[in-house]
Amino acid sequence: MIVLFTDFGLAGPYTGQVNAVLQQSAPGVPVIQLFADAPAGGARRGLIAEAAGRVYIGPDNGLLELVLRRAARPRCWEIGWRPPGLSASFHGRDLFAPVAGRLALGAPPAALASRAEPQGYPDWPDDLAEIVYIDHYGNALTGLRGESLPPGARLAAGGHSIAQARTFSSVPRGDAFWYVNANGLVEIAVNAGRADRALGLAIGSEIKILA
Amino acid sequence: MIVLFTDFGLAGPYTGQVNAVLQQSAPGVPVIQLFADAPAGGARRGLIAEAAGRVYIGPDNGLLELVLRRAARPRCWEIGWRPPGLSASFHGRDLFAPVAGRLALGAPPAALASRAEPQGYPDWPDDLAEIVYIDHYGNALTGLRGESLPPGARLAAGGHSIAQARTFSSVPRGDAFWYVNANGLVEIAVNAGRADRALGLAIGSEIKILA
Amino acid sequence: MIVLFTDFGLAGPYTGQVNAVLQQSAPGVPVIQLFADAPAGGARRGLIAEAAGRVYIGPDNGLLELVLRRAARPRCWEIGWRPPGLSASFHGRDLFAPVAGRLALGAPPAALASRAEPQGYPDWPDDLAEIVYIDHYGNALTGLRGESLPPGARLAAGGHSIAQARTFSSVPRGDAFWYVNANGLVEIAVNAGRADRALGLAIGSEIKILA
Repeated sequence: MIVLFTDFGLAGPYTGQVNAVLQQSAPGVPVIQLFADAPAGGARRGLIAEAAGRVYIGPDNGLLELVLRRAARPRCWEIGWRPPGLSASFHGRDLFAPVAGRLALGAPPAALASRAEPQGYPDWPDDLAEIVYIDHYGNALTGLRGESLPPGARLAAGGHSIAQARTFSSVPRGDAFWYVNANGLVEIAVNAGRADRALGLAIGSEIKILA
Repeated sequence: MIVLFTDFGLAGPYTGQVNAVLQQSAPGVPVIQLFADAPAGGARRGLIAEAAGRVYIGPDNGLLELVLRRAARPRCWEIGWRPPGLSASFHGRDLFAPVAGRLALGAPPAALASRAEPQGYPDWPDDLAEIVYIDHYGNALTGLRGESLPPGARLAAGGHSIAQARTFSSVPRGDAFWYVNANGLVEIAVNAGRADRALGLAIGSEIKILA
Repeated sequence: MIVLFTDFGLAGPYTGQVNAVLQQSAPGVPVIQLFADAPAGGARRGLIAEAAGRVYIGPDNGLLELVLRRAARPRCWEIGWRPPGLSASFHGRDLFAPVAGRLALGAPPAALASRAEPQGYPDWPDDLAEIVYIDHYGNALTGLRGESLPPGARLAAGGHSIAQARTFSSVPRGDAFWYVNANGLVEIAVNAGRADRALGLAIGSEIKILA
């Protein structure tokens, strides 16, 4: 299975072209569009990372450094393989997709890449006390892992103090609460409402933990 | 074939995670993203419904009651099966997707669920004289089935009186008309224009039938 | 492989219904969602076009005329086959999808269609000096093929004069430039910014080539 996590968007031509290349490179391997609206990333050398038995391919922009940092037995390679026609602006289609296809069909990383270390991002925290994503319901996802908060902690966000609840229906309609979401991250929501509008939250809004 | 009808959105992580679970649960079974922007629904017990030879899985929020109400030989079960890690907020990924995968591979509903009746929604009409969806062309879909209207009826919507036409090109550019759309529902459109803006229509706008 | 290029949008029901029909018509044939937000097109007779070994199916609205115009050994057919229930408004689902499925499984065009010429669009230029698409990064794609411009040419767009650069990182942050994008078209971008907002560009904005 090949899983896409990109900033390419679903509208427009980009994700479709990547899928077409994956289909040509690895016919029959299922492709999952996991996430297409990540923040835009800059061009960097290409890496292959192996962590906990999964293989990741992407630019050396810090995401894979974080994956490797948290993994047991991490391994990393710099992609040396180049396709015949490599565009300057679309490495996702021209470089990462064919590499992903070859790896999905069983090629070893060493056939396409040489061992390397990812660029270090020592300043990047393991937990980020900010809103990192607003989903289409208006729920505000933070960069805090659920286990990093003491149970019963309150959060301050957008000038409001927010208590924990287990589910939407545990609080009255219109009330804000935080909970550990289905991906293990702390998320701020409003029962039957949009947390972003009700609390004035946006990507980058700061969160304070009130122990 | 597994068909998704959800309020998860295509952007963001939700639909992708459901697809990943379906791929793991039922490798090789094609998955169709039929509709991802249905109105948000609340948490309810999970049902399996069988109607006209098709199997439906989802919360007991009234949608399946309507499906069963219209079907010959309807059957319904309440899902008792639980996955090892069931999140409080994402039953689509954690409960419905693995159940769908197992049913697609041939498991009988009775292996995962017990016979039950859906919650009754006796107040829900068979036809809803409202705008229920605005598509990306600006066409306004109603909850009226085409066969519920006498041919030649006029509709009142947004302060306008609207006549029937068979296709867009049957009326002058800029004119509004209604027609029975490709799903059998009454739809209001404007030739070479957006009906929502031209007529001031939004989801929930009331429609009157002028016989 | 079946590739979709449509104005149906990804949200809403249209693309999903087309995919369901393709899956029924040609089980196991991979379907790629290449582009779903092309400008809306009107209803026209349906064509099958063969160009450079690829088969195209769609309305006779000029897109296929352009494909055929540029191809060696172009061939064109008008679709005569009709499905049992052909809606007036959704030929993509009811006509083009089942025809695509049959051709993908090996049916010859002549089994579904008769040789025909596409409608001529002699006024349509090979290169269009306009913005034709704004992508989700805010980059402004033109209808100019990269090889149609002399290297080093400047473009005038939105009252600005824009020089060529090879990649985003070749210019200072916030600066506008043009480059030949990964599809071979001239594209206007701003390093670490949105060209549409910075330069006041929208679909249809005129471009001038300053030699």
